[in-house]
Amino acid sequence: MFAGISRFDQIQADLGISRKVLTERLNHLVEHGIIERTPYDARPRYEYHRTSTGAELVDLLMVMIGWGDKWLAGEAGPPVLYRHHACGETTQVDLRCDHCGEPMHAGDVDLLPGPGAAQTA
Amino acid sequence: MFAGISRFDQIQADLGISRKVLTERLNHLVEHGIIERTPYDARPRYEYHRTSTGAELVDLLMVMIGWGDKWLAGEAGPPVLYRHHACGETTQVDLRCDHCGEPMHAGDVDLLPGPGAAQTA
Repeated sequence: MFAGISRFDQIQADLGISRKVLTERLNHLVEHGIIERTPYDARPRYEYHRTSTGAELVDLLMVMIGWGDKWLAGEAGPPVLYRHHACGETTQVDLRCDHCGEPMHAGDVDLLPGPGAAQTA
Repeated sequence: MFAGISRFDQIQADLGISRKVLTERLNHLVEHGIIERTPYDARPRYEYHRTSTGAELVDLLMVMIGWGDKWLAGEAGPPVLYRHHACGETTQVDLRCDHCGEPMHAGDVDLLPGPGAAQTA
């Protein structure tokens, strides 16, 4: 879906897995609010689109892939490149502070207990 | 280690797992270049620090946790908050383009085949 595929038959053709397995996996993602199912003709057939939760999960996936590309891809290089709409460049994700816009890596923060901290004990 | 713990005994006390299991896990991370082991006294005892690869894996973990905090934490709220050194605010990671600095989410990019694409076929 990240690559613009949304219809069941397209997804199945792309992945090459059985209709049964694909249906189970899509239902699982629908149940967890990652994607939503919409009929697209009268039979009905279905297409699947990311929810907001799912879209941000794909953002996360993009960051994960970026880490793998940098540290694990080796000489072959990354299998996929990202061209950013805003600037047209082939680029990568940079982690910035949502408040001040400066770089924000794990070494740039202190950890504080949050409101849900008690439940982790 | 994200929380500033580096010595074997500290890590073991924090996690509450056996020395054997912890040793296996740390060795696994050392072998994969995520952490490195350094002796810190004559016995020797060991402490563990992130490599560059490992530091960026923790960045990724911070993004993963952010997704979970936003979509899965529910009413309890996040267990951990991040205070950014640069601005002092309790904040979150924002995904920006490494080239132009504008927001870069999965919907803001086109996917292009990269040099390693052939190997994924």
